[in-house]
Amino acid sequence: MEGSTLSDAPFVDASAAPWKELSKGVKRQILSYGPDLMLVRVAFEPGGIGALHHHPHRQATYVAAGSFEVTVGESNKTLRTGDTFFAASEVPHAVKALEEGMLIDCFTPARTDFLD
Amino acid sequence: MEGSTLSDAPFVDASAAPWKELSKGVKRQILSYGPDLMLVRVAFEPGGIGALHHHPHRQATYVAAGSFEVTVGESNKTLRTGDTFFAASEVPHAVKALEEGMLIDCFTPARTDFLD
Repeated sequence: MEGSTLSDAPFVDASAAPWKELSKGVKRQILSYGPDLMLVRVAFEPGGIGALHHHPHRQATYVAAGSFEVTVGESNKTLRTGDTFFAASEVPHAVKALEEGMLIDCFTPARTDFLD
Repeated sequence: MEGSTLSDAPFVDASAAPWKELSKGVKRQILSYGPDLMLVRVAFEPGGIGALHHHPHRQATYVAAGSFEVTVGESNKTLRTGDTFFAASEVPHAVKALEEGMLIDCFTPARTDFLD
């Protein structure tokens, strides 16, 4: 179970938060969240893919490590550590890890679909 | 000028985004944002402080580097790289960098007060 309630606990100890494998070489950890804001991180092995998808939630993503080929709508760009992307509501987006890496994804509202 | 419009540009190249000094040893870079979600990062030299403050925006923060003494409401905790905190609307919060570090702050709605 990744999480069960819309907690707004003040602190999350990442070493105690469970990881969920999403696909080969890609796993997600739910960190802090409340009803209208959720922060998760996604770890990628080289070549790991977040397939093209869309959702009503707005998403801002920070490259915490590594480099990624990123698609947002009709645009493509290679992002490196420190760079970010933004996906407005229902705008398709995808990522491919060019090396081992980590993304910090922020959503509004919270991705309640991530909660078991 | 840190930014002038509520852009939802798909990509931000961090190397091209300006830094604004907030206080001694603390500087902020506005990265991706839209009207209801903003992602910024804040770089701290050792001992750099984010003084106790509060705002209506909800905030989720990721420790991208370093370690911090963090206060949220009545709670205090030392957070290390990978850990997070969450401040609900109007809940006072503060940070102190115990070493050189970086925080990724996500807000909903966007901190339009950060935009010149």
